[in-house]
Amino acid sequence: MVHAASHTVHRNGICGSDLHFYFSILPVAPTTLVPHVVTGETLPIGMGHEFSGTITEAGPGVDTTRLGVGQNVVVEPLVSCMKSTCPFCVQGSRNLCRHATFVGLGGWGGGLAEFTCVDQNLVYPLPQGIPLDVGALMEPLAVAWHAVKRSNIKGGDHVLILGAGPIGLLTLRVARVFGAAWIAVSEPALKRRDLAERHGADTVYDPAVASADVPMAIREITGDRGADVVFDCAGTQRTLDTAFQAVRPRGNVVNVAVWENRPTLDIDAVTYKEVTFTGVMAYDRDHREMLDAVAEGKFKGLEDLITRRIGLEDFVEKGIRALIHEKDQHVKILVHPSQREPPSYPSGASSSRLVSSKL
Amino acid sequence: MVHAASHTVHRNGICGSDLHFYFSILPVAPTTLVPHVVTGETLPIGMGHEFSGTITEAGPGVDTTRLGVGQNVVVEPLVSCMKSTCPFCVQGSRNLCRHATFVGLGGWGGGLAEFTCVDQNLVYPLPQGIPLDVGALMEPLAVAWHAVKRSNIKGGDHVLILGAGPIGLLTLRVARVFGAAWIAVSEPALKRRDLAERHGADTVYDPAVASADVPMAIREITGDRGADVVFDCAGTQRTLDTAFQAVRPRGNVVNVAVWENRPTLDIDAVTYKEVTFTGVMAYDRDHREMLDAVAEGKFKGLEDLITRRIGLEDFVEKGIRALIHEKDQHVKILVHPSQREPPSYPSGASSSRLVSSKL
Repeated sequence: MVHAASHTVHRNGICGSDLHFYFSILPVAPTTLVPHVVTGETLPIGMGHEFSGTITEAGPGVDTTRLGVGQNVVVEPLVSCMKSTCPFCVQGSRNLCRHATFVGLGGWGGGLAEFTCVDQNLVYPLPQGIPLDVGALMEPLAVAWHAVKRSNIKGGDHVLILGAGPIGLLTLRVARVFGAAWIAVSEPALKRRDLAERHGADTVYDPAVASADVPMAIREITGDRGADVVFDCAGTQRTLDTAFQAVRPRGNVVNVAVWENRPTLDIDAVTYKEVTFTGVMAYDRDHREMLDAVAEGKFKGLEDLITRRIGLEDFVEKGIRALIHEKDQHVKILVHPSQREPPSYPSGASSSRLVSSKL
Repeated sequence: MVHAASHTVHRNGICGSDLHFYFSILPVAPTTLVPHVVTGETLPIGMGHEFSGTITEAGPGVDTTRLGVGQNVVVEPLVSCMKSTCPFCVQGSRNLCRHATFVGLGGWGGGLAEFTCVDQNLVYPLPQGIPLDVGALMEPLAVAWHAVKRSNIKGGDHVLILGAGPIGLLTLRVARVFGAAWIAVSEPALKRRDLAERHGADTVYDPAVASADVPMAIREITGDRGADVVFDCAGTQRTLDTAFQAVRPRGNVVNVAVWENRPTLDIDAVTYKEVTFTGVMAYDRDHREMLDAVAEGKFKGLEDLITRRIGLEDFVEKGIRALIHEKDQHVKILVHPSQREPPSYPSGASSSRLVSSKL
């Protein structure tokens, strides 16, 4: 038996992972020859995993009191094996499943389409009053929420965020909600530094300035200790090195970036400062409490992060390529697949993408 | 005012750090030109930081009920700045002091001498019935104790230890005391694998065998999960890679090794498994509870780890070089600086090495 909610995709954000995926292969994705273990699909697949939309039809078994036609929703696009032999799926930590992937990266449709169909367990009502544009930011906000939770941040902490792309800026917002007393952001692009200030950063550094010594600046501000928590939201050798230099003894460096190559590790800093380095992977049952915080008004003004809105036909030129070649000008580019009123749901058309109710 | 206890050095173990120090420069050591900030000494300095001995004279202010003449003792050789402006020295985590070093690596004497003089706060009575040879193993045992404590090991955990040198073998013993249910050791040297078995390893792997796939073997034993905690006690690119492959999702990889070069990091494993990587630095107020555990008989049979006893004059040829060129044959080599009865304490001779009472 299948439970599904299908909906018009109104907004789909372009993620850094999409850039990686457009140009190379992601570990969570299938190839043209080897299907993904869970989705059974090979490339090409539909892309897009940061999306919001409006329900146009509810499949059999869908709880329509929660997900009725016309309801604006967001999607938690995490796909996992859900087998009873998987210790992680069984305990609910689906992001740790060996076969974890995402709607839009591993198969099962994606948000870069006028319509898609998603298991109801992956669909959350968008809180009242939150526009669909902001709804498309809920997936990266969940990434930031999960990263900050796993950082063991404490109220009053001094935090450094390296990189002010969408994830860096959202991590800034979440760190404040979790009680960070002082947050610094290091980012070479002027537009992104401006956004960091507008979203509450206490100090913003430009690491491209020749005299910039972010670790030393942090030490001066923290009484020679260093930052309690550092989030690497850029994923470059330089930011990772800065992270280990700037973190305080027994502080925590959290990697929130996707890397294409292996970095080297400042093992002396790890050792002599007893630093912890923590990996984070997407989200793990974070959407509900994060959306509650959104409903409580803790994340106002996120629209600022959207620097362009484009149609589906412009995804590559004005989306992917702009994020690479005009990186200084953009933070989050939203694709609006449905510019017109939704037609009636094309029944049966998406049946191959329906997700098992076991999710 | 100075409080000091001077003692005959009966035994001094040769540490992997001594090997690094003999051939190159350690971050905690001074150079020939730049004195160490705390000790004020430049190279050459007296070496030896794993030592036990017998008190021959107590300086003014020494608590002789605890450290009377004739008492067998061990030394916690950690030196730190002890300034009121150092947040780590003030809170007692002296190993995190920016200027932390060791007696025998940063100055202030060392165990490779017939006599030395150490601040009483760094001196602990050797528990009754524990031979001085075993006393010389208390410093590396403290390293293992601290590493296991920082690993957040839990009763029933599955543990993998990479490298069965002295630190690896002692980590094995400590992990068992802390409740590990199953401990595997991976080590290429036969003699060290034998010792791992004798000291209670549940499984011992030879990673040099062509068919060895330690991560896969661990997964088979742990129901496809992986090890809860992995200790890298070797510090090679290969062991670090094995660690990240063998650890379970949300497990902890602990680096207990000293590295000469930066390793590369398996960032995909860190990310997709949400692994934590933890640095450890020596010990932090661990000696007292560790020595209590020794007194309770929890570390019987450590004499096995001592594979050679040499005189001071043989330190380089039969000590340092043997540990490099005959690594398969040796685990811990002890130097016996004092082969004869101690003469009367040469008063004044060591005054330049007395440690401030602030320690």
